[in-house]
Amino acid sequence: MSTIDLSQLVTWRRELHRFPEIGWSEFTTTARLITELRGMGLEVLAGPNVINREFVRGRKADVVERGLALAQERGISQALLDEMDGLTGCMAVFDSGKPGPTVALRFDIDCVAVQECAAGDHIPNSGDFASKSAGLMHACGHDGHMSIGLGIAKWLVENSRSLGGKVKLLFQPAEEGVRGARPMAESGIVDDADYFLGMHIGFIAKTGEIVLNPNNFLCTTKYDFRFYGAPAHAGAEPHIGRNALAGACHAATQMLGISRHGKGMSRINVGVIRAGEGRNVVPAYGEIQVEVRGEDESINTFMAEQVERMAKGVAQSFDLRLESEVMGEAVDLRNDPELIDLLADVVAQHPELTAVAQRSFGGSEDATILAKRVQRHGGKSIYFIVGADLKAGHHQAEFDFDEKQLKTSVELFVGCLQKLMVK
Amino acid sequence: MSTIDLSQLVTWRRELHRFPEIGWSEFTTTARLITELRGMGLEVLAGPNVINREFVRGRKADVVERGLALAQERGISQALLDEMDGLTGCMAVFDSGKPGPTVALRFDIDCVAVQECAAGDHIPNSGDFASKSAGLMHACGHDGHMSIGLGIAKWLVENSRSLGGKVKLLFQPAEEGVRGARPMAESGIVDDADYFLGMHIGFIAKTGEIVLNPNNFLCTTKYDFRFYGAPAHAGAEPHIGRNALAGACHAATQMLGISRHGKGMSRINVGVIRAGEGRNVVPAYGEIQVEVRGEDESINTFMAEQVERMAKGVAQSFDLRLESEVMGEAVDLRNDPELIDLLADVVAQHPELTAVAQRSFGGSEDATILAKRVQRHGGKSIYFIVGADLKAGHHQAEFDFDEKQLKTSVELFVGCLQKLMVK
Amino acid sequence: MSTIDLSQLVTWRRELHRFPEIGWSEFTTTARLITELRGMGLEVLAGPNVINREFVRGRKADVVERGLALAQERGISQALLDEMDGLTGCMAVFDSGKPGPTVALRFDIDCVAVQECAAGDHIPNSGDFASKSAGLMHACGHDGHMSIGLGIAKWLVENSRSLGGKVKLLFQPAEEGVRGARPMAESGIVDDADYFLGMHIGFIAKTGEIVLNPNNFLCTTKYDFRFYGAPAHAGAEPHIGRNALAGACHAATQMLGISRHGKGMSRINVGVIRAGEGRNVVPAYGEIQVEVRGEDESINTFMAEQVERMAKGVAQSFDLRLESEVMGEAVDLRNDPELIDLLADVVAQHPELTAVAQRSFGGSEDATILAKRVQRHGGKSIYFIVGADLKAGHHQAEFDFDEKQLKTSVELFVGCLQKLMVK
Amino acid sequence: MSTIDLSQLVTWRRELHRFPEIGWSEFTTTARLITELRGMGLEVLAGPNVINREFVRGRKADVVERGLALAQERGISQALLDEMDGLTGCMAVFDSGKPGPTVALRFDIDCVAVQECAAGDHIPNSGDFASKSAGLMHACGHDGHMSIGLGIAKWLVENSRSLGGKVKLLFQPAEEGVRGARPMAESGIVDDADYFLGMHIGFIAKTGEIVLNPNNFLCTTKYDFRFYGAPAHAGAEPHIGRNALAGACHAATQMLGISRHGKGMSRINVGVIRAGEGRNVVPAYGEIQVEVRGEDESINTFMAEQVERMAKGVAQSFDLRLESEVMGEAVDLRNDPELIDLLADVVAQHPELTAVAQRSFGGSEDATILAKRVQRHGGKSIYFIVGADLKAGHHQAEFDFDEKQLKTSVELFVGCLQKLMVK
Repeated sequence: MSTIDLSQLVTWRRELHRFPEIGWSEFTTTARLITELRGMGLEVLAGPNVINREFVRGRKADVVERGLALAQERGISQALLDEMDGLTGCMAVFDSGKPGPTVALRFDIDCVAVQECAAGDHIPNSGDFASKSAGLMHACGHDGHMSIGLGIAKWLVENSRSLGGKVKLLFQPAEEGVRGARPMAESGIVDDADYFLGMHIGFIAKTGEIVLNPNNFLCTTKYDFRFYGAPAHAGAEPHIGRNALAGACHAATQMLGISRHGKGMSRINVGVIRAGEGRNVVPAYGEIQVEVRGEDESINTFMAEQVERMAKGVAQSFDLRLESEVMGEAVDLRNDPELIDLLADVVAQHPELTAVAQRSFGGSEDATILAKRVQRHGGKSIYFIVGADLKAGHHQAEFDFDEKQLKTSVELFVGCLQKLMVK
Repeated sequence: MSTIDLSQLVTWRRELHRFPEIGWSEFTTTARLITELRGMGLEVLAGPNVINREFVRGRKADVVERGLALAQERGISQALLDEMDGLTGCMAVFDSGKPGPTVALRFDIDCVAVQECAAGDHIPNSGDFASKSAGLMHACGHDGHMSIGLGIAKWLVENSRSLGGKVKLLFQPAEEGVRGARPMAESGIVDDADYFLGMHIGFIAKTGEIVLNPNNFLCTTKYDFRFYGAPAHAGAEPHIGRNALAGACHAATQMLGISRHGKGMSRINVGVIRAGEGRNVVPAYGEIQVEVRGEDESINTFMAEQVERMAKGVAQSFDLRLESEVMGEAVDLRNDPELIDLLADVVAQHPELTAVAQRSFGGSEDATILAKRVQRHGGKSIYFIVGADLKAGHHQAEFDFDEKQLKTSVELFVGCLQKLMVK
Repeated sequence: MSTIDLSQLVTWRRELHRFPEIGWSEFTTTARLITELRGMGLEVLAGPNVINREFVRGRKADVVERGLALAQERGISQALLDEMDGLTGCMAVFDSGKPGPTVALRFDIDCVAVQECAAGDHIPNSGDFASKSAGLMHACGHDGHMSIGLGIAKWLVENSRSLGGKVKLLFQPAEEGVRGARPMAESGIVDDADYFLGMHIGFIAKTGEIVLNPNNFLCTTKYDFRFYGAPAHAGAEPHIGRNALAGACHAATQMLGISRHGKGMSRINVGVIRAGEGRNVVPAYGEIQVEVRGEDESINTFMAEQVERMAKGVAQSFDLRLESEVMGEAVDLRNDPELIDLLADVVAQHPELTAVAQRSFGGSEDATILAKRVQRHGGKSIYFIVGADLKAGHHQAEFDFDEKQLKTSVELFVGCLQKLMVK
Repeated sequence: MSTIDLSQLVTWRRELHRFPEIGWSEFTTTARLITELRGMGLEVLAGPNVINREFVRGRKADVVERGLALAQERGISQALLDEMDGLTGCMAVFDSGKPGPTVALRFDIDCVAVQECAAGDHIPNSGDFASKSAGLMHACGHDGHMSIGLGIAKWLVENSRSLGGKVKLLFQPAEEGVRGARPMAESGIVDDADYFLGMHIGFIAKTGEIVLNPNNFLCTTKYDFRFYGAPAHAGAEPHIGRNALAGACHAATQMLGISRHGKGMSRINVGVIRAGEGRNVVPAYGEIQVEVRGEDESINTFMAEQVERMAKGVAQSFDLRLESEVMGEAVDLRNDPELIDLLADVVAQHPELTAVAQRSFGGSEDATILAKRVQRHGGKSIYFIVGADLKAGHHQAEFDFDEKQLKTSVELFVGCLQKLMVK
């Protein structure tokens, strides 16, 4: 069985680090993944074949346009762009041709809107692979995740004779803002999966730690609410205005006052408000960007229903037209014990690694939507953490991770696949 | 022509002062008026004949019950109470039997919820005619208004031979809170009137001043909004509550923020809020008492529509059941020049009186509803002020007015009637 | 060793049930307790000797007056009332005269403002011991708690020879609203205690269950905030008003919006709002009754600081004078393992009882303040639940508990005391 | 006496129309005015000599920088820019050298942020003098006002022999947002003026109408309030945030609820709100742009005090740091009868003009600050309207005015000056 080649993983990761793309604009990234994976001989699906357009959230037209224009500038072939048909992300399918289970693996591919740090000792600078796109950076490790996915793909191709069943490698767009998993799930591509495995590098664990069963995945729903009223000169005839700023402010104060839930943790944040165009005009437009969270789906649903009701009520109060848009969502997750045990066995084969049974995740991750979809169809799912020392926290300009853990990650996936697929 | 007898007017006024009754509970008062007027030989209508029950506002069942019980205790005959059928107020009709115009005069009969002052030098105390009902007092002069009405009735009966046409003397209940005029108007009893005359004693004028054309009558609508939610233990399961206190508070803050009107004066007041039963229970009930005003009907309507919309919006936001009730209303008024001139002529016959052409009323008075009703049917209307020195402002415990102006008032009415009705 | 006499416990409980008294007005109750306990030969302290007046919360003058007047009417001696000096509650001290530990036991004595149910099958009705005070009822079981305290006192006196050390039996006023424990603690009477034991009957356990270690005692602080502004006629000169209703409503909406706490459960409730006197007056007075809770003291302190800050901010915004009053408080509690084990051993001697190791209390109880005071001085504390079948939930008109558990309760206390005090 | 040359006025106006500059960035404009006026032989003061820096409002550093850079690009001499020292606007002084009164005239020089319309039939397009600065346009007529000022200057120089006294021609920056007059007044340059004349072209009057005494100038104060809190991750530890969005929203809702004023018209507008940076972060920054107005200074002061108090109160409530900045202000004005009569006489000499005695201005204009300053020092002031047919309303992209009224305007000023200054 061929060994995992760290230098190849690093090369992939660094090349991807140079060209970060924000959610739903990952045309260059997707094209490179497709080319690489097809180059290995794998079947790759893209565009509407892996993304159900109806469930796409938080996809801004101008962001998509810029991503497309940049891809064309960078020489991505029009054929590939046509195949994507405006939708990023792809799925490679490894089929052993022999009986066996179907295993879905998921890697996220988008970057965050952070300006990469310019310091000389920041490794992407000293190693000459810093972001070439101003204001954008792979500061969450998704470059690493893609590299891991490619490494697994390579291993599968090289070891196909010893394997049974199929592996679907999902390269998911728009994880930031928890937007991409839902439309990927709704395309149906994981409905036949017997197993689902997802992971994150770094985050809540240091190099050497593997968190088998992170818990406290927060269910969340992200909303934009837009209120449309009517302008008026604030001095001469304020009464003909329909005040969208007043509406947006009351919506915000109502939402912040949603009751705690007696059964567990809930959260509400109105993260952004923008309303009004000029000091002396009754504001005709206002918007708020909101997120709710809950310890489980019922609590999140309670919160979501309240904010929706309040947005409607405020629109009624101030005679405004309301546009509500779900911008993203994630659910909670309970890892299946069978896969926890399986991963524990794999970790146990690595003396340099320590298994951490449980640790609080405390955030939201839309891999949970894919994982729960598999569970609802009778499959088993796990999402785990591969520890990696970090230079700075996720989403910070100085973020960088211990690249050696790319290899650890591939080895853990491969270890699991061997247990699941080797006869 | 018989002279007006001040001592009779004072006797009536003092007897009525002893037994003040709050709006919609004036059963004793109405019974005494009916008895007195029928004793003069006049036809008197009462109950549903003068009040359209459908338009009755702000009539509290417990207040009505107490008023009825008290009337029975005081020996009011059951026949009279049956005639009223729960509705206070009455109208005496003087018919000369000869051709001539129909003139409607209006006098209000309810008291206010003020505890009369106990000082020995307060004339109702020294004169032994203070209120016998704790917490209630004729502190607005309506006792005087009724006395004036009786005085005019007596004069009409005594001078019927020289007169043509008809006079309708309206004794209106529930002026406080501007509740009684609308259902009286809606009964249709002034629809045949050629002229309408109303007045107030004191208020914006001193003894000797007669304000011919008070202006700035504010249109107003009074609302009670009641919100019904669901209680919950605030510690154990706050999320099952539907918080009526939150709703009532947001309704209040929204309403206070209704835009000024570019075309003229507007007002909004949330005068009372009551919500919640205990510190540790999510409040299931909340109510607010609201009034809006406007310089004219269109501005008042603007304000009224906003508060209604906001009450609905807040009910939607907090998932509450809403009860809205109009508790009272008054409109603006423009006195007809013909009657202003007529009254000016009458005043000019009294060397001790000074005519004030115009002065701001600056408040609300529901006689305007009757006056405008007459105008809409082609008649002419006037509402004027008979000045009277006051011991203290209206609605205060020390209120008392210069009783000599009762006679002045009757003389002015009689002067007008002579000009309108004598051939 | 004498046995515990259930019929005596029932007699005591039923007599106390007849005369319920609301917090800080328990003069009759306290007098009867003192008389009974002194009759057993115990030393009893009362008034300022057991209550530190400076820390008294939520004591309304009119309630105290009514309680005192009623006590005098019922023939309570003036000497006893003088001894209380306006402060209810008392402490009996059993001193064995021999070396040994000091054990503090706590029983609460106030009732709740509930009208007892009138149904014939309600046992206090069929047994002829229903509340004689309209609107007041021992609907939380404190009548039972007092009976248990008296039973223990009797046992101690009868078994003094076999015991070492001292027992302090605290009869605490004003538990409802968590008001009485703090000033009792601040009097210093439990500072010498080596052990503290408190309990509640019913609540979260059925007959036969003993909850050894109820957890999730919520820290709480209760506030009244009173806002004083200036009235104004809402039509004529609204601008001279300083609107206390607006202030109270904004305070409520701000407080409901206090952020969740990332470290654990928090609660906020604005249970009552009252503001304004009349529809057409800018409101000059407004009050809100508030409670905050937290899973631990730091979270409760976070919440308390926020509401205090908001009340001040709103007073600043609307130019109001603010009165803030802490109306009650309770803290969290962790039972000491030594006493959990001791109680478990006692329960194990009763085959009819089942020990429940842990169950969520989920509410607030100010015995925790006394318990923590003992712990801070180096002692050990426990608060446990003696299950009892209920006819209806606590604070309901149909509430009644299984009286046989009075005897169980005394036996458990006695069992513990034997282990702690018998040489 | 030389005649007024319309073609020269049009040439000046069109040249100025090409280079519109927003308030406090009018460096090119000021330089051209100085050069032109000095070319006529007049003394011209600029920079700190005409602007008291301490009272400068609403001057954004980036706007100033761009204006300066553009002026340098356009070849404005560094000496002139040094003279301005960062402050735009200037004053030309005509001194006849003979005894006589001092007359101050005021012309405003800034443009508005409007993109000029591109239609071919828009005269600035067909006449080839449209704005060369994207997003900026002289759409209020200030280009015309400057041309009128230059025309008067030319006439004064040409007719100096027949005149006594002095004329100060103020070219005021930053009228939009009512920012420039106050610091100009505070420099003291009009304190010696016996007369003050200001005017606006168009607005409330058509070609041929001269409004002698526009009334209802609204007093106004413009504020920016900036709230600084602390960010926090909205999921993990929301409690460490200090929520500036909540503060800004509550400030807005409080301010909208400021009471109407019983003595006259008031206005409040929160025209813009901006808060928060991301959906999942507790917002650390929020700002609102506010304006209040009042029919007179006392009402405006009432409104201004309320918003300042509320901003402070909200900062207290939410533990935020507050920055308050006055961004502009204007006062009311009563024209002096002496000057109204004088202007009426001048208008009467023009048969093609109609004098309109009074018409409501209904807006705010900071010339009133200069005018009232003159009145407070014992002088007389007038602000009048020279009617001009408009293609579209002020501040609209299609705005254009009847250029022939430039000549009318100069003639009216000159007519007044002749009456005031000719011996």
